[in-house]
Amino acid sequence: MNLPKIQNAPHVGTLPAGPLGTIADVPGVTVGHCTLDEGAVQTGVTVIRPHDGDPFLDKVPAAASVINGFGKSIGLVQVEELGTLETPIALTNTFSVAAVAQAQIRAAVRADPQIGREWSTVNPLVFECNDGYLNDIQALAVTGQHFDEAWAATSSDVASGSVGAGRGMSCFDLKGGIGNASRVVSAAGRSYTVGALVLANFGRLPMLTVDGTPLGRMLAERAAKVETAALSATPATKPEQGSIIMIVATDAPLDARQLKRLSLRAGAGLARTGSVYGHGSGDIALAFSTAYTVPHGADFITLPPLLADERLDPLFRACADSVEQAILDALWRAASVAGRDGHRRLSLRDSVPDLVQLLKPAPR
Amino acid sequence: MNLPKIQNAPHVGTLPAGPLGTIADVPGVTVGHCTLDEGAVQTGVTVIRPHDGDPFLDKVPAAASVINGFGKSIGLVQVEELGTLETPIALTNTFSVAAVAQAQIRAAVRADPQIGREWSTVNPLVFECNDGYLNDIQALAVTGQHFDEAWAATSSDVASGSVGAGRGMSCFDLKGGIGNASRVVSAAGRSYTVGALVLANFGRLPMLTVDGTPLGRMLAERAAKVETAALSATPATKPEQGSIIMIVATDAPLDARQLKRLSLRAGAGLARTGSVYGHGSGDIALAFSTAYTVPHGADFITLPPLLADERLDPLFRACADSVEQAILDALWRAASVAGRDGHRRLSLRDSVPDLVQLLKPAPR
Amino acid sequence: MNLPKIQNAPHVGTLPAGPLGTIADVPGVTVGHCTLDEGAVQTGVTVIRPHDGDPFLDKVPAAASVINGFGKSIGLVQVEELGTLETPIALTNTFSVAAVAQAQIRAAVRADPQIGREWSTVNPLVFECNDGYLNDIQALAVTGQHFDEAWAATSSDVASGSVGAGRGMSCFDLKGGIGNASRVVSAAGRSYTVGALVLANFGRLPMLTVDGTPLGRMLAERAAKVETAALSATPATKPEQGSIIMIVATDAPLDARQLKRLSLRAGAGLARTGSVYGHGSGDIALAFSTAYTVPHGADFITLPPLLADERLDPLFRACADSVEQAILDALWRAASVAGRDGHRRLSLRDSVPDLVQLLKPAPR
Amino acid sequence: MNLPKIQNAPHVGTLPAGPLGTIADVPGVTVGHCTLDEGAVQTGVTVIRPHDGDPFLDKVPAAASVINGFGKSIGLVQVEELGTLETPIALTNTFSVAAVAQAQIRAAVRADPQIGREWSTVNPLVFECNDGYLNDIQALAVTGQHFDEAWAATSSDVASGSVGAGRGMSCFDLKGGIGNASRVVSAAGRSYTVGALVLANFGRLPMLTVDGTPLGRMLAERAAKVETAALSATPATKPEQGSIIMIVATDAPLDARQLKRLSLRAGAGLARTGSVYGHGSGDIALAFSTAYTVPHGADFITLPPLLADERLDPLFRACADSVEQAILDALWRAASVAGRDGHRRLSLRDSVPDLVQLLKPAPR
Repeated sequence: MNLPKIQNAPHVGTLPAGPLGTIADVPGVTVGHCTLDEGAVQTGVTVIRPHDGDPFLDKVPAAASVINGFGKSIGLVQVEELGTLETPIALTNTFSVAAVAQAQIRAAVRADPQIGREWSTVNPLVFECNDGYLNDIQALAVTGQHFDEAWAATSSDVASGSVGAGRGMSCFDLKGGIGNASRVVSAAGRSYTVGALVLANFGRLPMLTVDGTPLGRMLAERAAKVETAALSATPATKPEQGSIIMIVATDAPLDARQLKRLSLRAGAGLARTGSVYGHGSGDIALAFSTAYTVPHGADFITLPPLLADERLDPLFRACADSVEQAILDALWRAASVAGRDGHRRLSLRDSVPDLVQLLKPAPR
Repeated sequence: MNLPKIQNAPHVGTLPAGPLGTIADVPGVTVGHCTLDEGAVQTGVTVIRPHDGDPFLDKVPAAASVINGFGKSIGLVQVEELGTLETPIALTNTFSVAAVAQAQIRAAVRADPQIGREWSTVNPLVFECNDGYLNDIQALAVTGQHFDEAWAATSSDVASGSVGAGRGMSCFDLKGGIGNASRVVSAAGRSYTVGALVLANFGRLPMLTVDGTPLGRMLAERAAKVETAALSATPATKPEQGSIIMIVATDAPLDARQLKRLSLRAGAGLARTGSVYGHGSGDIALAFSTAYTVPHGADFITLPPLLADERLDPLFRACADSVEQAILDALWRAASVAGRDGHRRLSLRDSVPDLVQLLKPAPR
Repeated sequence: MNLPKIQNAPHVGTLPAGPLGTIADVPGVTVGHCTLDEGAVQTGVTVIRPHDGDPFLDKVPAAASVINGFGKSIGLVQVEELGTLETPIALTNTFSVAAVAQAQIRAAVRADPQIGREWSTVNPLVFECNDGYLNDIQALAVTGQHFDEAWAATSSDVASGSVGAGRGMSCFDLKGGIGNASRVVSAAGRSYTVGALVLANFGRLPMLTVDGTPLGRMLAERAAKVETAALSATPATKPEQGSIIMIVATDAPLDARQLKRLSLRAGAGLARTGSVYGHGSGDIALAFSTAYTVPHGADFITLPPLLADERLDPLFRACADSVEQAILDALWRAASVAGRDGHRRLSLRDSVPDLVQLLKPAPR
Repeated sequence: MNLPKIQNAPHVGTLPAGPLGTIADVPGVTVGHCTLDEGAVQTGVTVIRPHDGDPFLDKVPAAASVINGFGKSIGLVQVEELGTLETPIALTNTFSVAAVAQAQIRAAVRADPQIGREWSTVNPLVFECNDGYLNDIQALAVTGQHFDEAWAATSSDVASGSVGAGRGMSCFDLKGGIGNASRVVSAAGRSYTVGALVLANFGRLPMLTVDGTPLGRMLAERAAKVETAALSATPATKPEQGSIIMIVATDAPLDARQLKRLSLRAGAGLARTGSVYGHGSGDIALAFSTAYTVPHGADFITLPPLLADERLDPLFRACADSVEQAILDALWRAASVAGRDGHRRLSLRDSVPDLVQLLKPAPR
């Protein structure tokens, strides 16, 4: 096979990445995809597990920032109140949130039959973007089994691109999808990892900015001369209807309030790619820590010493850089996809064969 | 039939009720129930329609207050961002949120096939309480058809008690369920109606306060002498696992920010019944106005003159009184229900035959 | 002196109070008042210290709930972000927030001259209510020295009534002011204290509810026959322009997220006295814990084991009961005050000589 | 004098600026500065008036986004609740918030003596950044008179740079201060202006990004060879203690909820300059509309047709671009300033004489 040589997006910023360059650089975090690729059905499910134990028995501290709330995710009300996750994080398309939430409940009850009986109910956490341009979203093709398959596939070997929930997603009028990145930082004398996984489905081409280079504007100008496939796909006047979900993991010992602060910095990374958090884009970030768990039913919660707020700046930077990097990763790794009604999205590499040339720093 | 004579709860406060004494006193608002009553399955769906048109094409202004976020409702993220409803409001049990949300999507797409295609997606709004004491919640018995049936049954003739989503609910260790109330007030020289519908499923008996009378404490003291069925059902040490959903409608011209203010006053009414917003209780209030609609796809939104914030106090009072009254209405109208595993909840009238006597104002 | 015999308000609820019945039942908490009582100037400053150390060096965990934001308090933005207090809590009248904030800054810089130099700045926390009915608020009579005096007067011997910031406050058209209460509860097998101090300046007489008895309505009906001084003071049609600040202290080990949950329950206690959080009433609750401190400049914050959220219900109840009790305490202990332009507020005991009779439980 | 030729920062994005390139491009908006420049006192006050009428009688719709709440601003609680401004917007240094708030109250009472008497109190709005590096902030040199002078100086001729509240501010280890920008956009077929005024006092040099160019990194690398004055001023390891206040004005007809959405997009513009919303940086954006006013004491508020949310994207883009541009404007227009204890900040033009060369797009 004659794949283009472009493998990695340019490295954003000066912080080093972890060994894998994915959210799985945070020890214990695993990811699985289930991809549906059949004609007009181009969609899927992605599952992120914070640890390999039972997430209901050992909840993890977490918090979210709703940067733009044009979104239909489920589970955030309780995360805001209690500051914990108690299911894996699931990603899918907008109309499949219900099916996946149902599957989350079934899985939790299978593992802990006391749920909804002696114990309280469980809070399924499912995020979504609208992949309706490529995918026949009205077909409601995702079922609980697809969630189970994604869950069963979780591992620390994390794929990016047109896979799982990212199968049908578009980003900057190009093929979007799942992206990953990580950064390693030092804070208060210790080393911590921040990892990001994004479901990138936002933006119009002229806004695309790659590590400071206005690539979208360059491509749009080029397209004004020679109409390219990427640009012709969507009328430039149509408003953005996308979204982005940004999942941020860290092994730093933070509580929910601090994780909320961290999650908001995902918005800084997102902005650097050209987004202004468009009206129609559900832009939501969730951050969790793997440094400790909150045991179900305990009387007291024992925490490790928490990193002081005054020491968070390196983590804030790592969060912004990881999210920006993960969005580029989604663009770089996505494969072109053809979907419903003749709709197709070209990947960045397919639509810009001279990408390396364009991004090469010009000599001064 | 030899029904007890107790029909109406004591009238809370000094504001007059509307002619129906239900949320349907707000012109245009209709409610439908679908009740599942088969052995261990004691649950259902309740649907509230803000008007009889297409809610996606003519959205209504709305806002919510999450008083205690131990809840699994779906749709609030977008309501908070955009300040509108675009589906009917559905109520059901915790594990059936997904099935009902799916049905909401299907119904919206049936009415407007452009949804998720040329148009953006739709935001299904579904609230829940946990009826797992009476209902076999793990059976996931509610299906989309039950939503459709509740929707088809909507009318201005609104039942309260052990119906619809209220079928399996418990309240103060008694039978809870659906409650209704309304108040008519004058503000800025005009007359407005506030209506409330609650799904009441919270509280332990000793907390119950009826229009200022500590009825729960009186009953608990009595029970300490003669063990009653109502009290023996749940060990007094078990924490509350209930919830309450409070839907507030008004014909006053308010915008989303003002409706958020109004919705919070539901918490005042709730507190007066004895609740302290227990940890395990998902206490959520949503308020909407029928005074105007927000048309889908319009360039500009034309509003009627809005009631000034300085004129809101009568509405705030009406909201608190309506919610308090609606909770009492749920207790007064509920019928006793037997459910899974021999669990049963006695109604207030069945467990306190001398209720009228107890609540009679003592002579001074 | 021939004081009426009414000393204590009826005991709210069934939880026991602490030995002092004030916020100072939480070990380490002290309060000081500086009262200005000169003709038209009827106002003051109240200071609450969470511990007797340096609050900037040893910050305490804290969080607030803005129940109704018609208020001009200063300092809440940073409390929300960082979850800590770093000055004492000061209370005063609306137009004196600035003078007291300035004094807070001066006091902090005196104690720690590095503030605003090598160290970051300090966040003064000052709450307010509008005492403009009795007090010539436009005179801006409060100065930094009054803050210093209140601070110097802090002790565990805490006065309630027409003192400190409470000097000019009105409540339910009666004399309001400072109120105190406490409750002792058991949670997760240990004993904890919750204390409340309120600055009560809200409500119209007909709303007043005393432990479930509609005392305000009874008094208003009586007044309709014989016009009383209390009722004639304010036209019944004038909207509420008051406010209430509710400070809640506990020795339970809670983090800022949990303290935010706790603080919201102050609103339940407030509602039980008859408030519906009127439009013009700035209703704000702040809760802090004395169980640990957050040292300035530390790399890591070591916390004691935190009480699990599932164990918070007794504290929630204690918070609501303490706040309701503290409001009654303010009414019971306030002395009548005459202020600017011939305005006067009668105390409850002065305006209702037969109060004991009225509140006596009627025989059944 | 031989001023460098650099007058204007590079134009950010593709939207056109208004004729003035300042916040005053929004008709009716005026700005005044009062600058204190005496030895160790390097500070001031800046006042923004939304219109030339009485802001208490004719309030303007407004809303804020607290992006990072390490800040001591006053007035936001009520803006959040009521969605209006009722005083001018004042900017100053952290320790002068109180003096300026006091002056705001005095000015409001002078204009409307009923305030705090027959009418409710007034909500002074004062934002701040910490200029303690250059300015002797502990001297508390700002008085009410300085507010009055800034107010008296308001006009549509708006200065940027080391003036007013910006006198002592630092940004990216360079001289910061006041910056202005505007953009004109078309939405729903009409033309609207968005203007921004920032008080820029944040960031460390290596983060500085100018329209996508990592200028800060380039300068830091250069500095690693030849130690420059700009870089030597602050040890690179010291955390950021700055802040940024971003005031956004528009003539588009938006309500408070929409203005809150707009204000959040200031954070996107901020992020593009290199900020990750550092822990110690109080990053707050406030947006207001001049399209209508909310009259004090009215029964009903008549609004013009509001721009639909689906038409907001051009305004979101204009907000992000204006804020980014205004930050660059602050850097470009600031003059070098020497302050307390020998501290000094070089302006960008003084510290980088070859700036034009560095930013010239390299030939491809």
